[in-house]
Amino acid sequence: MSSVCLSMEGGAAASTPAALPYYVAFSQLLGLTLVAMTGAWLGLYRGGIAWESDLQFNAHPLCMVIGLVFLQGDALLVYRVFRNEAKRTTKVLHGLLHVFALVIALVGLVAVFDYHRKKGYTDLYSLHSWCGILVFVLYLVQWLAGFSFFLFPGAPFSLRSRYRPQHIFFGATIFLLSVGTALLGLKEALLFNLGDKYSAFEPEGVLANVLGLLLACFGGAVLYILTRADWKRPSQAEEQALSMDFKTLTEGDSPGSQ
Amino acid sequence: MSSVCLSMEGGAAASTPAALPYYVAFSQLLGLTLVAMTGAWLGLYRGGIAWESDLQFNAHPLCMVIGLVFLQGDALLVYRVFRNEAKRTTKVLHGLLHVFALVIALVGLVAVFDYHRKKGYTDLYSLHSWCGILVFVLYLVQWLAGFSFFLFPGAPFSLRSRYRPQHIFFGATIFLLSVGTALLGLKEALLFNLGDKYSAFEPEGVLANVLGLLLACFGGAVLYILTRADWKRPSQAEEQALSMDFKTLTEGDSPGSQ
Repeated sequence: MSSVCLSMEGGAAASTPAALPYYVAFSQLLGLTLVAMTGAWLGLYRGGIAWESDLQFNAHPLCMVIGLVFLQGDALLVYRVFRNEAKRTTKVLHGLLHVFALVIALVGLVAVFDYHRKKGYTDLYSLHSWCGILVFVLYLVQWLAGFSFFLFPGAPFSLRSRYRPQHIFFGATIFLLSVGTALLGLKEALLFNLGDKYSAFEPEGVLANVLGLLLACFGGAVLYILTRADWKRPSQAEEQALSMDFKTLTEGDSPGSQ
Repeated sequence: MSSVCLSMEGGAAASTPAALPYYVAFSQLLGLTLVAMTGAWLGLYRGGIAWESDLQFNAHPLCMVIGLVFLQGDALLVYRVFRNEAKRTTKVLHGLLHVFALVIALVGLVAVFDYHRKKGYTDLYSLHSWCGILVFVLYLVQWLAGFSFFLFPGAPFSLRSRYRPQHIFFGATIFLLSVGTALLGLKEALLFNLGDKYSAFEPEGVLANVLGLLLACFGGAVLYILTRADWKRPSQAEEQALSMDFKTLTEGDSPGSQ
């Protein structure tokens, strides 16, 4: 019942699928528009951002969109974009982008808890906050597990092979949950701030709705690039050979037995 | 650069991966709990459901959770669960589940528009409604495209092969967007109905938050079963041969050239 994917390129050329750069460029355009529009929303309608005032809250959505949406999404795309670089370089870049995302998200988290404390607001009662804490904990665990298995030199190859599909699935899931949590937060902010004016198609409401759709589109674009089978990173010759040996050892199939 | 997945089973046995039934059972438990909990929320805290009164609104969340979350999710799993049945039977079941989902969602849609009309509320101003309309239109288009390509007998095999990965990607994306839209709707209902009581950890708020997490978990469980590479439906011998011929014709590779 086992199946194995064999690459037909014969380990030869380093090339990039023709359409990939356009899709990546489109995703980056979406991502940057997303960040710019979040800034525009906070600047135009929410008074801008400052740490030592009521505007501290506004650091929360901006940090979360930059860290847990844009940078996290881009970290997932690293293996597609730098498909012909050395695996180790790509890995380090993937890990680094996730560190940046984590640190920026942490600043965003501190901003909202600090703001709540100063204002005397209750913490962690809403669905947005429950999803947010879940995302943050999963993201931290995923980063630590990823580091231990793939960057720390001690992990045996067999363990890496076994963990890799789980890492990819949970990575995509945590990213999608981040996008969903951002949508919940945006919705919460709109209902708190606009109230009845939301249903009068106030410019802020329309802008924020478009921002929400862009968030969903960015999530979809990253997912598309990530899951397209023929855009996956070609495995290097030696990795492939090791992987085949591993399959042979664990499943008793001979790599040549089709 | 092309790669092709060869099954090692030699077209022999019809078998099911050992862990698959447990994961499917878990997803169904989650899905049924989801529907029951939506009913409990509406029954206990929102006065129940009736068509000819203010309770008409409550038909909306129940129909959407049953149709666009539970049934749509199950329709995606059909090819994993009935992996050893004839392809045609599985296809018809997949299409039928999606028809049920579509009809139930349509009732849910009529419920909310009818309720808004009677109450004189504005339509389609919120992010939830924008996402909802997007989901519904995409779902309808996907159903029509799926029917034309895969159930209607006229579509040539080459076109089916080309469209299949797009159908799978958009199917999963529409399902995830449905789950996200449900979360937005739940959040909207909570903020409208509970207001300040939400932050006092009222039982309704806690129940609805748990319902939200269950929605996200059901989405994650369906995605996991759907994307696990070794759980994909084994292609039948004759389909595989045709698929290989098609690959050979379009990409100039010989199926035997590893």
